[in-house]
Amino acid sequence: MFSDAIRSAQLALSHTDTHVAQRAAHRWDTKTKPPGSLGQLEALVIKLATLQQSPDPHLSRTAMFVFCADHGVANEGVSAYPQAVTGQMVANFLAGGAAINVLCQSHGITPRIVDCGVATGPSVGTINCWIGSGTRNFAREPAMTPGQCESALSNGFRLAEAAKRDFHAVAIGEMGIANTTSAAALFAALSGLPVEDCVGRGTGIDDRTLARKRAVVEAALALHRDALQTPAGALACVGGFEIATMTGFLVGCIAHRLPVFIDGFIAGAAAACANAMVPQAVTHFLFSHASAERGHRALLQFLNVRPLLDLDLRLGEGTGAALAIGLAQTALSLYRDMATFESAGVSQRGA
Amino acid sequence: MFSDAIRSAQLALSHTDTHVAQRAAHRWDTKTKPPGSLGQLEALVIKLATLQQSPDPHLSRTAMFVFCADHGVANEGVSAYPQAVTGQMVANFLAGGAAINVLCQSHGITPRIVDCGVATGPSVGTINCWIGSGTRNFAREPAMTPGQCESALSNGFRLAEAAKRDFHAVAIGEMGIANTTSAAALFAALSGLPVEDCVGRGTGIDDRTLARKRAVVEAALALHRDALQTPAGALACVGGFEIATMTGFLVGCIAHRLPVFIDGFIAGAAAACANAMVPQAVTHFLFSHASAERGHRALLQFLNVRPLLDLDLRLGEGTGAALAIGLAQTALSLYRDMATFESAGVSQRGA
Repeated sequence: MFSDAIRSAQLALSHTDTHVAQRAAHRWDTKTKPPGSLGQLEALVIKLATLQQSPDPHLSRTAMFVFCADHGVANEGVSAYPQAVTGQMVANFLAGGAAINVLCQSHGITPRIVDCGVATGPSVGTINCWIGSGTRNFAREPAMTPGQCESALSNGFRLAEAAKRDFHAVAIGEMGIANTTSAAALFAALSGLPVEDCVGRGTGIDDRTLARKRAVVEAALALHRDALQTPAGALACVGGFEIATMTGFLVGCIAHRLPVFIDGFIAGAAAACANAMVPQAVTHFLFSHASAERGHRALLQFLNVRPLLDLDLRLGEGTGAALAIGLAQTALSLYRDMATFESAGVSQRGA
Repeated sequence: MFSDAIRSAQLALSHTDTHVAQRAAHRWDTKTKPPGSLGQLEALVIKLATLQQSPDPHLSRTAMFVFCADHGVANEGVSAYPQAVTGQMVANFLAGGAAINVLCQSHGITPRIVDCGVATGPSVGTINCWIGSGTRNFAREPAMTPGQCESALSNGFRLAEAAKRDFHAVAIGEMGIANTTSAAALFAALSGLPVEDCVGRGTGIDDRTLARKRAVVEAALALHRDALQTPAGALACVGGFEIATMTGFLVGCIAHRLPVFIDGFIAGAAAACANAMVPQAVTHFLFSHASAERGHRALLQFLNVRPLLDLDLRLGEGTGAALAIGLAQTALSLYRDMATFESAGVSQRGA
């Protein structure tokens, strides 16, 4: 049962040794620079040290998990692209032509394409976490059954367990036509914020489509009102197979002390869901960037976290998280390779 | 005369073909992603294309110019570190132990250490642009003579001319104990903003030292009031040898169409000075980051530019600019290597 997974994550969080952070901070202060002057880069390494429970964190083996699925709510005409694009982009990921492939190549990140429920069925070469041919249309009925939701959560948890054996850190990204609609509904349900603040233009819809998308989310929240009171209930009613699998994956990352970089709005909705299931879950996550998607800034504020980058990205796939891993690799090089005041013969501060 | 340099920069700016930007934007739109969804990364490549006047910009050969000098105003006790640290850090740069060395190594950037006036005299291994053993104390007299200022500007211009032969793009950073005091005074003189908004904690001074630093800048602006009316006058009275050399370098980058990444507050003050000499100069510059130094955000606002990164850095040396070059390299990989809708067989947008 997933409740065991949640308990193991809670246990890991409550047994985190915070002295590691002090040791990492001290090591930064021996380096030839004013204390704290590398700002967020110092904080990033200190956090990695805490998450890996070692003052000498590692990042040479990293992976990008791209969770893919289709959404029944695409039938409501809420996206700028036809549903077929989900499967086409999975083929593009496998062929190495997408933005996320280029970024993984640039930063030495291993891409892992996870099929959680693409409509055309599991493709050869993907990691099979397939639940079904896309969710049902949550404008009319729950997106998935409680059993499907539980399966997706468990798939994600087991995937994190396996990833821990191979990688020092991981990242989550996604692909799924209409999944900003699902993420917006889920975030609105979890946060209680007005729908207008949660719904954005996704891949770039026009004003009329945006109005329809808002109305769809508004109506769905009314339709499923009673079932939205718990995180798992909200996830089953308005979530997606990839969002549920990501949520389980995040809980698994906490339980197995595997640092995880969160990409944009949809991955962020999974993080909010994991945080609703496991209190303080966000303390384990690395928030990569603030995207241009409306709702993402509100989500980051709701979780009270500060992202590393702010580059107006709104592509998904894990693109912002891959850039953040690159930044973390650079921060770690500084932490390891800079000379100390002593070794370089540089005077320490006077005033 | 430096007035010839300014005219050649103006000529280059006025003869920039903006069609290149349209061609680069069109190429982005053929890639498998919603139009514009790579945000600032798309804008960055389009700007590089414009600056290099080619829809296929290059970044494989880049250099980081670290301009170093001492400041007479250090005698007023405005820094947390003794003046000897400037020369010690130059030795650290040459030995490869500083933050900027690690970042250059990580991103394949060639470091160039430029001695514009370190008190201990030009070190072996630096690029010699040495004007004198630090500036005079501008709390009492002009920091440099008009002739010294002109020499520093010309040195910088010639350095950019030579750099154009070897590199696709360059960046500017700096080192010089007390140079945030000089940059703050220069920026206040150029902008007319209140001194309080321009002066920050530099390497991390305490409240008492901050109050003294403000008073020193305030008094210097009053002392040199008449001479501060022109950019060159302000530069000579309250600038530094490295700031003047950077200013000349920036004018040279414009004249020779060499894209240049600007680091933090001190490099930014040089950019503001170049912009006061050459109208629209900032359109040629790439602003790397918003630093934690008070005054830098005001400077970016004054120049009406948006930086790429915001990581609370306050180290100088060019550290933020090196990170921005890394980001630009990644953006260029995406621009070159991503599949097109046609090559990948992905459907284009419907709505």
